Order: sequence, then C-alpha cells, then structure tokens
Amino acid sequence: MPSFELLLAEFENQFKDRLFPSTPANLYNAIAYVLDNRGKRIRPVLCLMGNVLTGPLQLDAFQAANAIELYHNFALVHDDVIDRTPLRRGKPAVHIRYNTPTAILTGDTILLYAYEYLNRIQGRYKHKVMQTFNEAARAVCEGQQMDLDMETLPLQSIAYQDYLQMITLKTAVLVAASLQIGAIIGGAFTDDQEHLYAFGKYLGTAFQVQDDYLDAFGDFRKTGKQPGDDIITNKKTFLLVKAYELCNNAQKSLLQELLALPIADKIPAVLQLYKDCKVGDWALKEKDRLQHLALQHLESMSVPAVNKRPLLELATLLLNRQY
Amino acid sequence: MPSFELLLAEFENQFKDRLFPSTPANLYNAIAYVLDNRGKRIRPVLCLMGNVLTGPLQLDAFQAANAIELYHNFALVHDDVIDRTPLRRGKPAVHIRYNTPTAILTGDTILLYAYEYLNRIQGRYKHKVMQTFNEAARAVCEGQQMDLDMETLPLQSIAYQDYLQMITLKTAVLVAASLQIGAIIGGAFTDDQEHLYAFGKYLGTAFQVQDDYLDAFGDFRKTGKQPGDDIITNKKTFLLVKAYELCNNAQKSLLQELLALPIADKIPAVLQLYKDCKVGDWALKEKDRLQHLALQHLESMSVPAVNKRPLLELATLLLNRQY
Repeated sequence: MPSFELLLAEFENQFKDRLFPSTPANLYNAIAYVLDNRGKRIRPVLCLMGNVLTGPLQLDAFQAANAIELYHNFALVHDDVIDRTPLRRGKPAVHIRYNTPTAILTGDTILLYAYEYLNRIQGRYKHKVMQTFNEAARAVCEGQQMDLDMETLPLQSIAYQDYLQMITLKTAVLVAASLQIGAIIGGAFTDDQEHLYAFGKYLGTAFQVQDDYLDAFGDFRKTGKQPGDDIITNKKTFLLVKAYELCNNAQKSLLQELLALPIADKIPAVLQLYKDCKVGDWALKEKDRLQHLALQHLESMSVPAVNKRPLLELATLLLNRQY
Repeated sequence: MPSFELLLAEFENQFKDRLFPSTPANLYNAIAYVLDNRGKRIRPVLCLMGNVLTGPLQLDAFQAANAIELYHNFALVHDDVIDRTPLRRGKPAVHIRYNTPTAILTGDTILLYAYEYLNRIQGRYKHKVMQTFNEAARAVCEGQQMDLDMETLPLQSIAYQDYLQMITLKTAVLVAASLQIGAIIGGAFTDDQEHLYAFGKYLGTAFQVQDDYLDAFGDFRKTGKQPGDDIITNKKTFLLVKAYELCNNAQKSLLQELLALPIADKIPAVLQLYKDCKVGDWALKEKDRLQHLALQHLESMSVPAVNKRPLLELATLLLNRQY
C-alpha cells in the first residue's frame, strides 16, 4: 500500500497543473497566491488513501482530491476574512495582501473550481460523491457559524457536547468525507465507507483535542514555542470549555476574572488553574477515547489489514506528535 | 406554450418547499431572510422557458431553476457585502440585518445548496448542465472583480468594449446560461442551445443599457422616481463610459470636474452634458443593436415559431418598459 508521502507526491505532481485562466488578474493572482502557500495537504491525500484501500489508485480520486483541497482553501480564505486573521501559514492573509472584496471573490471562485473538478468524475458514482462532498461542505459553514455564535457566549452557557459538535462540523467532517469520497470512487462497500467516515471523524476531533492540549502543555523544546497562545486570545478550546465544567465555584470565578484580563500575564495563572482542575489529564483521556473509537472503526472495515496500515500509521503519527 | 406568468407560478409553487434545516439558527434564519425577500425570478423562469421550447416541462428543469435562483441570491448577498450596499429590494441587506461574517457564510451556504439541487438532476445531461452552470457562475465572479477594478480606474482608462465585457460577465452570462440549461435538459440541438445562449446574452446586455438609460432619461411619471441615482453615486454606467468617449476635450474636463463634486446638485449639469454629447440617442441605438442581435439568434433556432413566442414577448416587454 502506498504511504502518505508517496500519495502526497502524486497529488502535488498533478495539482500543480491548474485550470485557472489569467484574467481578471486581480482575481486569479489572488487565487494563485492562496494556492501557492500550500498546507499539509492532509485532506486530499486522505481521499487518495481512502481510494487505495480497495484497489489501485484511480484518476477520479485525483479529481475529487483536487476538489477537496480547493474547498479547504476556499474555507480558509473566508474564515480569515470572518475572523480577521492577519496571517495564514506565515504569510499575510488574502484580505490583507489584497483586500476584503477580492478575498471574498477569491474564496467564491476557488469553491466554484472545486465543482469543476467534481464534474470531471464518472457518472457511476458522481451522485454519491457530490452528495458526500456537499454535506461536508455545508457542515463546515454550519460549524463556522456555531463557532461565531459561541465566541460571544459566556463560558457557563457552552456545554461540552455542543462544543464537540461544533468542532466536529467545523473540522472533522471534511476529514471524514475526504476518506469516504476516495472509498466511494474505489467501490468500497457502503458499510466500509461508513466505518471509514467514522474513523476520519474521530481522528479529526482527537487531533483537535491534541492540538489544544499542546498549546497549553506542550514541551517548549519540542513545540518550539511558548505555551499559551490560545490563552492570550481567550480562544474557546476543548481545554477551556472542559476546565470550566471541571472547576469548583471558586475556580470558576477566578477563571472568569482571568478571561476578563487583556494581558498575556494571565498565562501562568490559567495554566495553574488547568492543572488544579486536572483538565490536562482529562484531555489526554478524551484524546485516547476518540482515538480508540477511530481505530475501532478502521478495524471494522472488511478490507485486508495490510491495506489499512498506512492509515493506522498516519493516525498514530498525528495523534502522538509532541509539536 | 406556457407564458412567463404561468411558469413563474409553477416555479414559486415548488420553490417554497425548501431543503434547509433549522440550525444553526443564526445561519438558516439569515438564509430564510434572503430567500423570502424575493425578486422577479427572471433567471429561473428563463430556465423553464428554455426547457419548454422543445417539449413539455420536465422535473429536472425545476431542479436547475432552483439552483440558478439560489446562485443568483448567493451572488447578491456577497455583492452587497463587497459593495457595502445597505438595502436589497427595499430591506436591509443581510450584512446589515445580521452581520458581515454571517452574510459571508449565508452566501456560501446558499451556493452549496445550489449544487444540492444540481446533484438531483439526471446523469444523462448532468455533466453539460454543471459545466454550463459552473462557467456562468465563475463569469459572475470575474465580472464582479472587473467591476471592482473599474471603480478605481479613471474614466479615460475605461474602453467601452471592456465595460461591455464586464457587464456581460457580471449580469448577462447567467441569463444566457439559465436559458441554455433549460434547453440542455429539454434535449435541444447543440446549435439551438448556442443560439438560445446568445439570445440571452444580448437580451441581458440590452436590458442593462435600457436600465442605465432610464436612470438618466426616464419619465418621472412612469418610473416614479427622480432621474440621476447613478449620477449621484458616480456609478460607472453604459452612459457615463460612452459619454466620455463621445465628449470633446472641453466636455471631458467638465465631466471630470462634475464627477469630483460630492453633491446631488450635479445631476442637472451631468444630464445636460449627456444631452450635449447625445449619449441618450446612442444608448437607444445600442439597445436596438443588442436587441436585434438577440432576436436574430432566437429566430435562428430550429424550433416552431409558436414555441418561441413567450420568449419574444418577454424580450419585447423587458426592452420596451419605461420604468
């Protein structure tokens, strides 16, 4: 079975030839700016990995992978406008480098090109691929709206289950759908497609728990950065939402007071509170629980174990990283 | 052949049953707010009119018409954010009634639902329908970017042909594609599809010339409004762009000076300049030229003349309106 790295190389090799025209230049230069600033390509490669579970890699899996990568970039461009994020992958976001109107149109046009790629795939499974893609695409927008709604809510109004659902929609569903779309094209059984989707969904949420954990408890020598970025910005993370649930009344008041402070000085105090209420231990357990669910679903798939190995290795790598 | 009104009633009858869920409420309430504030439905009904040119109305034409109407609403929502337009069809725009982040997500989600409808149509012609839809959808975004670019350009840098191309992309191509998509589903010959597309394209641009003409030269007793809204906002219209071309050097300087004034008082002076350079006469001739091209293409279609009559009547109605 081809590894993540091998499939990544194959993905890049064909993704560099793009469909886009050159004019209007202000629009297509901005699109090139977005796509040249490439990320880890996890989603499109997962689509290819889902495809090879049942047989050789198919041309249509690349079309779908391209659509997924374009969709992901569309979502990032619009999210950056919405959240007023100045930097993306170390470079000025599109709305900073160009302007907000062009950023909105850049996102829109990238999304429309995703459907251009989807339209190239064969009729036999096109309906199901598009259905899966559309559902995940809408979920991302719904998750983003939930995230916006939660930003303005006080901590005591956010239940952990609602937060988990928001993260699932905003980030995990697209990971899950990427795998499933590859498997649909590969002709996998419906049951196996659903197990693979569930694997992706739990993998995505476990990854996010891990991410939030590392921001607070990561080892500086491994992460290369001081902990607490999320704390400075009062970002609602798995840790913050759960910590509030775990706190006693006195700790809850203290946490609220700390959130109201505008300064970075609060990091040690928040971290101490996180330690006192043992939210770090909870996060490691929650990550294990989600990881276990993911792996159970992978195991339940009726394809040879050797075919699942690259996915197992990827999951282990992603969920045991220390940086 | 069913008339515009009859097809409009059929369209409304099925469009009121919507696919959308109810949560997150802030997102789906905003979507309902957009869709309840309905427009003239010209594009979706044109899709149905294109469909009945060759035979009875098909279920798939409704799916495509729904997708087209959703696309049009997506484009309006994002355009209003981009252009900071406070009102849409007499009500506060979504970014005013809700906020800009929700307006961006509202547009995105409406667009994704357009593809949900497109995914319901039959496989036989799905590829061509989606291709035609995607091309038109991208053209609208490209036209919007060109419009943004032209906003900041001085008048002397805008050639009439470039302006015409911008308007064609921004408004006429979707009208053209709506007709063609109906015809594709109806099984029209490729030549006839192309004639119908061209009919729609010229109809759309002729309509826009007429619109700009009425803003400056419309009869108050018929339009119900004082002329010159476009003049107050310095909007680059067919009239303004062409007037500059027609002006002599002294008039060009005067026009530039008038544009620099921030006040509504300039309306009579600009109108006088429009009269002096005879841009009104030009506009009526240009409208006739485009209308003639449109009708030639309609005539060239190899379907019975009686089938074309509702389109002929609609074109006459749209292009001879005085308000």
